[in-house]
Amino acid sequence: MPDLRRLPKSIATVCLSGLLPDKLEAAAAAGFEGVEIFENDLLTFDGTPADIRQICADLDLAITLFQPFRDFEAMPEPQRRRNLDRAERKFDTMQALGAELILVCSNTHAAALPEPERAADDLREMAERAAQRSLRVCYEALAWGRHVNRWRQAWDIVRHADHPALGLCLDSFHTLSLQDDLAGLAGAVPAEKLFFLQLADAPNLAMDVLSWSRHHRLFPGQGELPVASFLRDLLAAGYAGPLSLEVFNDEFRTAASRRIARDGLRSLIWLEEQVGAAPLPALPKLSGVEFMEFAVDHAARDELGDLLGRLGFRHAGTHRTKDVELWRNGGANLVLNAEPDSAASERFEQRGASVCAMALRVDDPDRLVARAQALSYPVWRERIGAGERRIPAVRAPDGTLVYLVEAATAATRPIWEDDFRVEPGVDAAGLLGVDHVAQAVAPGMIDGFVLFYRTLFGLEPDALWELADPYGLVRSRAFVGGAGSVRLPLNVSQSGNTGTGRFVSALAGAGVHHIAFTTADAEVEMERAAARGAPMLDIPENYYEDLAARFDLDDGELTVLARLHLLYDRDPEGGSFRHAYTHAFHDRFFFEIAERRDGYRQYGAANAAVRMAAQGRRRTGGD
Amino acid sequence: MPDLRRLPKSIATVCLSGLLPDKLEAAAAAGFEGVEIFENDLLTFDGTPADIRQICADLDLAITLFQPFRDFEAMPEPQRRRNLDRAERKFDTMQALGAELILVCSNTHAAALPEPERAADDLREMAERAAQRSLRVCYEALAWGRHVNRWRQAWDIVRHADHPALGLCLDSFHTLSLQDDLAGLAGAVPAEKLFFLQLADAPNLAMDVLSWSRHHRLFPGQGELPVASFLRDLLAAGYAGPLSLEVFNDEFRTAASRRIARDGLRSLIWLEEQVGAAPLPALPKLSGVEFMEFAVDHAARDELGDLLGRLGFRHAGTHRTKDVELWRNGGANLVLNAEPDSAASERFEQRGASVCAMALRVDDPDRLVARAQALSYPVWRERIGAGERRIPAVRAPDGTLVYLVEAATAATRPIWEDDFRVEPGVDAAGLLGVDHVAQAVAPGMIDGFVLFYRTLFGLEPDALWELADPYGLVRSRAFVGGAGSVRLPLNVSQSGNTGTGRFVSALAGAGVHHIAFTTADAEVEMERAAARGAPMLDIPENYYEDLAARFDLDDGELTVLARLHLLYDRDPEGGSFRHAYTHAFHDRFFFEIAERRDGYRQYGAANAAVRMAAQGRRRTGGD
Repeated sequence: MPDLRRLPKSIATVCLSGLLPDKLEAAAAAGFEGVEIFENDLLTFDGTPADIRQICADLDLAITLFQPFRDFEAMPEPQRRRNLDRAERKFDTMQALGAELILVCSNTHAAALPEPERAADDLREMAERAAQRSLRVCYEALAWGRHVNRWRQAWDIVRHADHPALGLCLDSFHTLSLQDDLAGLAGAVPAEKLFFLQLADAPNLAMDVLSWSRHHRLFPGQGELPVASFLRDLLAAGYAGPLSLEVFNDEFRTAASRRIARDGLRSLIWLEEQVGAAPLPALPKLSGVEFMEFAVDHAARDELGDLLGRLGFRHAGTHRTKDVELWRNGGANLVLNAEPDSAASERFEQRGASVCAMALRVDDPDRLVARAQALSYPVWRERIGAGERRIPAVRAPDGTLVYLVEAATAATRPIWEDDFRVEPGVDAAGLLGVDHVAQAVAPGMIDGFVLFYRTLFGLEPDALWELADPYGLVRSRAFVGGAGSVRLPLNVSQSGNTGTGRFVSALAGAGVHHIAFTTADAEVEMERAAARGAPMLDIPENYYEDLAARFDLDDGELTVLARLHLLYDRDPEGGSFRHAYTHAFHDRFFFEIAERRDGYRQYGAANAAVRMAAQGRRRTGGD
Repeated sequence: MPDLRRLPKSIATVCLSGLLPDKLEAAAAAGFEGVEIFENDLLTFDGTPADIRQICADLDLAITLFQPFRDFEAMPEPQRRRNLDRAERKFDTMQALGAELILVCSNTHAAALPEPERAADDLREMAERAAQRSLRVCYEALAWGRHVNRWRQAWDIVRHADHPALGLCLDSFHTLSLQDDLAGLAGAVPAEKLFFLQLADAPNLAMDVLSWSRHHRLFPGQGELPVASFLRDLLAAGYAGPLSLEVFNDEFRTAASRRIARDGLRSLIWLEEQVGAAPLPALPKLSGVEFMEFAVDHAARDELGDLLGRLGFRHAGTHRTKDVELWRNGGANLVLNAEPDSAASERFEQRGASVCAMALRVDDPDRLVARAQALSYPVWRERIGAGERRIPAVRAPDGTLVYLVEAATAATRPIWEDDFRVEPGVDAAGLLGVDHVAQAVAPGMIDGFVLFYRTLFGLEPDALWELADPYGLVRSRAFVGGAGSVRLPLNVSQSGNTGTGRFVSALAGAGVHHIAFTTADAEVEMERAAARGAPMLDIPENYYEDLAARFDLDDGELTVLARLHLLYDRDPEGGSFRHAYTHAFHDRFFFEIAERRDGYRQYGAANAAVRMAAQGRRRTGGD
């Protein structure tokens, strides 16, 4: 296998938003070494191709490909002749640009002839003309090509054409979207005929492949296609050209190009690790959420403390040097940060009382910091007082800090607690810890979060749920790791009217929307919460009528569930779930108390509509 | 055929956003006589079923259906027994609600048995239990049912069950999405077995039918399914129940429920006309755009007048009593309205200088007003001065007025001109009239516009184009009528960063974004415009290089096109198009000069990316 780190990393300009100079600057700023010039970006540019050549030279960007050249091969006359003239004109442009390789994608024209020999003749002629100018041509099977849509067909044509300036372009989307693979590539195709590689991932969608390709491609690691295995096969066949991203994505087209370019580069760095060619510092071993941290001022802290008290938390410690409190209930730790001139106070000014950080337990914080740096994720170090421990952190795409805390044994206490003076008192033991942390994310930011969770932490996507808020749909998918000890659902809504959409608008991006705590006995926990006057979300009686129809619950249990505002769910494997929600705090976040029985693995999505309607009623003053 | 006007109009609560009481109020306010209660809306309601019964009674709404009851028939024991218990519980709810009919949709459960006899037995048992409470059951083939997905299969089961309280529910989406129809229904199924009808349209999408159904259904007339023919067949078979809409649509879920409910009712009124059962005042005969009207103040009028002058318009008349000017170039009429305390001045305050009205030539304005009233579209009559003509108008969904002007003969002048004192002078004769009027529309409003254009004016949808703005995608589809004399493209962008998206955000909805004028000779027209110093959009040289590669244009013609900022397109039938754009006026609207040769029927979509990039460059200060 070649040393992948020596293969230049490249990105097609069509992946990025803006005008061509913006796209080139974004690609260079992210660290790409090459770009594919998507022809439309050149047509809309108001300078010459030579200007682009100069901009690329100044940015140290190679032009790895000029593309696409469409509907070329196997046309009847007079189109055949005209297509060759067209190619000559594009060769002029390429020479002005300083681009050496052009992509011909398989013909989609209705008039294209079903004759591979004709296609081979035409491509040989084009390659011969290219060669006279020291240019080269690569041929790619489009998944929706009229007669050629598999790489094996494209290879047959290239082989028959038999010209040194003609080779193959392979594209992970065009191959994998047809459930095809590269089996047989090594051996069949000489390495020197593998001219170019385009990489894209995508979600598994059952739709026509053209629309799927044009709107829903993603960077490797953001979707569900086996891109790593595709790349492995190609490298095994001796491919030694650039690793180049070609992604058509409606959200990428409108997002900030520098952010998208950075994610693109990360996806290639991660992919190199996946194929075993360029290792990164290893993935962490995760073992749960150590604490959640809230940005507050004193008034919000008093109010939040009151709510936490009713949920059985007690003020368990005070920071030695900062205006920060530790609240605890059993295994659940919450940090309330009112320190002025800190990252938390900045967050409070932007967002009001809100979650500003979470801490994950990992086996080796320093190794994870090194991994973050290798992936260009920003690392954060808070200023500390004398003798305090420095807890490393990385910044999530929305700016939330993710602290990395070494997992303590049962006998020790976590080192971050050294910074707190523990208050005397007896901790409650009702909560076992954090069950899951749900974040609401703007539609344009979701793919960046997915990449962050998967590439940095190794979290894996769970099932996708569609939740019916009374004012629009919310899509939810959890990312899970550490044998289920870390569960992070991401919620996204195209609508600005849903609870998720409103929260995201208020935050201008994304943030933690709710925190679920695990308990061993939700009924006991909720009895206590009721006794303490905890403000729990009212659940309509009709919900319990329906539960009675759907599940085999006796009337006694139903009565208890209804009295305690507990929702109920069961999964196909027989696990069951009891959970209740608090009212939202300052319209920002809310808490959930949850009990998983018999290995229940979901998140109560079946009850989300009831919860969201109850929250909508409260927002609109209905109760 | 029964008198359709006697069939109650009904809507499923799932079509509308909000909490159940809001949905019911919206349905009643729109004029529906019945509602299907979607069970989830009841579960999330915080009152009793009897409360809903009372609300419906107060609103004079019948509950036409309780739905859905899922995964019932042909299950193995013990689920079979439990499902019957579940049915009994739902019957309790129905009796409290005052709902008489429940919908059972065909089983999708993995454990469902492929045994129609078992299904018939189970449904007979359920129907018998329902009958004991004077309730009824209808059975529907879901398009993705595990063993039953065609209405003929559902009918076989209902026929075998042979119970008077059991009948069929037919759903246009479930039938038409599988390219099935109701052929053979009349004759095979007795009319008294046709218990219920659900109506939905949809765009033609090549995707899995479950996602298509759950997210993309539309009201009849908004999509592409042959819903009218479906209804005709059902009525021919003797159906005499309610006409009920059941639409799952992501945009409807988040839009204002009263607006969506009104559109739903309009779609049914239109559908009744389509099947020939309840005629409306006939569709208009359209013959072009008579004038466009702009809301301005005096400063904007001076500035706009200057721009119009450079395009060859002259100030041709002044209103007799209002602060309104008529500008004219050949067959193109523009009205500049600066009248205080008018609809135009209100619009100016909201939107700045912008299009506030357009006038269409129709054969009979009064008949079209009557049609608008029958469809509940708001009719507008401006206050007028003594002796002035009252021009009737309807309001488009964004508030733009559409004046209805009787077509004048070549010898006469339009009656609306009576209101103007014509200024002496010679009209230019460069422009033939308005070619098309493009509106930018927020994503949530597009289906309302489609309904307005189709049901009121009889405009028909043209091809859908996807246009690549540098900052996101724009989708465009023209609605055409009057033998091509009225062409109204609607542009929509999910992104707020595109030119379309920015315009829509600034207007908080929709509005006219550009006006194209036809000319018989674009080159002559643009030579004159250049001589007058008209501010035309610069087109990059690279565009013309590409034109040379794509089309058989000689260098002389290319040089002329480039000098005059003219874009060029050709359609598959050999028609050609030459067009140029002005700079945007106050970042609000822009003009296009267009020449169609040899029957060119499109809108130059192939050039949109070049135009949008040039506009983006101007916005961002690039030139």
